[in-house]
Amino acid sequence: MEVHGNPFSTSTQRVLACLYEKDVEFQFVNVDMAGEHKSENFLLLNPFGQVPAFEEGDLKLFESRAITQYISQEYNDKGTQLLLPGSNKTMAVLQLWKEEAHHFNPPSTKLVFELHYKPFFGMATDAAVVEESEAELAKVLDVYEARLAESKYLACDHFTLADLHHLPNIQYLMGSSAKKLFDSRPHVSAWVAVITARPAWSRVLDMQKQKL
Amino acid sequence: MEVHGNPFSTSTQRVLACLYEKDVEFQFVNVDMAGEHKSENFLLLNPFGQVPAFEEGDLKLFESRAITQYISQEYNDKGTQLLLPGSNKTMAVLQLWKEEAHHFNPPSTKLVFELHYKPFFGMATDAAVVEESEAELAKVLDVYEARLAESKYLACDHFTLADLHHLPNIQYLMGSSAKKLFDSRPHVSAWVAVITARPAWSRVLDMQKQKL
Ligand SMILES: N[C@@H](CCC(=O)N[C@@H](CS)C(=O)NCC(=O)O)C(=O)O
Ligand SMILES: N[C@@H](CCC(=O)N[C@@H](CS)C(=O)NCC(=O)O)C(=O)O
Repeated sequence: MEVHGNPFSTSTQRVLACLYEKDVEFQFVNVDMAGEHKSENFLLLNPFGQVPAFEEGDLKLFESRAITQYISQEYNDKGTQLLLPGSNKTMAVLQLWKEEAHHFNPPSTKLVFELHYKPFFGMATDAAVVEESEAELAKVLDVYEARLAESKYLACDHFTLADLHHLPNIQYLMGSSAKKLFDSRPHVSAWVAVITARPAWSRVLDMQKQKL
Repeated sequence: MEVHGNPFSTSTQRVLACLYEKDVEFQFVNVDMAGEHKSENFLLLNPFGQVPAFEEGDLKLFESRAITQYISQEYNDKGTQLLLPGSNKTMAVLQLWKEEAHHFNPPSTKLVFELHYKPFFGMATDAAVVEESEAELAKVLDVYEARLAESKYLACDHFTLADLHHLPNIQYLMGSSAKKLFDSRPHVSAWVAVITARPAWSRVLDMQKQKL
């Protein structure tokens, strides 16, 4: 099993967190984001030219959330159990909270870019984008606050892929001025504390330290 | 089973197309988009205040793609078979092409708004947004063209949810100036012809006619 990606890429981190949760061995192939992800060879792995990409035998995948779903299903018996719950109904509720692509992901990804990557690369943050994205994210977190008041984790009473998929953006935002959006909501804040404390997530952060 | 939505909403259409494919009986509860979707009662069904919402016994769902996945799994034996394939590996490839939330959906949704809804409501189309979104969608369709040159449908050799999820936006865009983006790509164009010709999809379009 090979994961092609970069430890500083949020989408790569999503896959790494899942692999560490499931305790599955894999080989990490570093992709240089200076342009290797647009090379002819890499485009064979992911025609959209983005990390991560994944190979296992003749199975080639891309899209972080498709990869985590495959790993959780294929290695069902290993490591952390029930990243995907068994029953159709609980699974349906999980799928619903996994649709963060339409809610949490767009504003949080913009904020990670403005508040983390841009300063890191010496670029100027766009205050208007920050303001608009923070307002959008605040509305999503209001829905999460209500949900997490009645359920310990997003999908059900235990940690699942729905929670895991949020980790990379949350980690970067907790180190930025957007932290206040999480801190000001008690149930969201408790959830953030619990999911960022998972040993599998520490291992993803350790991989970054080794690269710095 | 109750579906709350509006036949002119693309996300509602996604669920309707799936229900007709699976030949499952349901009750349709029309939601007036003049504001009913932001009412207290509706927010109990979907805290994001968007259609569709879904109820079956004590199961309450929202998010069109989570609903179609649930219906396909729960009514596995009914209607069109294998909207979700059986094997883990084919399922993983399906999941990957189902991640249109990150590629096809954003630019095509913007185009549907600019080229269909805005003219319909007498609002002015923003030419800059159209140009930018068409360029973005063209890149996605280049990837689809290559994929559909080697596979009859997006995920595998038969129709699945990955294809079905594209129907609503494609239908509106085929009636707009963005049609050229599909017509100019032969494999995409053949795929569009095949999936829009499905009887289940005609039934969704018929529901709209009854409302006009
Ligand atoms: N939806 C994709 C997004 C992948 C993505 O955006 N990857 C970023 C790094 S986090 C990337 O490769 N960016 C370079 C580019 O888009 O050119 C996934 O979840 O895998
Ligand atoms: N990701 C959601 C999107 C739902 C959505 O955007 N619904 C639209 C109609 S197609 C809506 O309710 N718009 C009103 C609003 O957002 O206030 C899904 O797939 O169900």
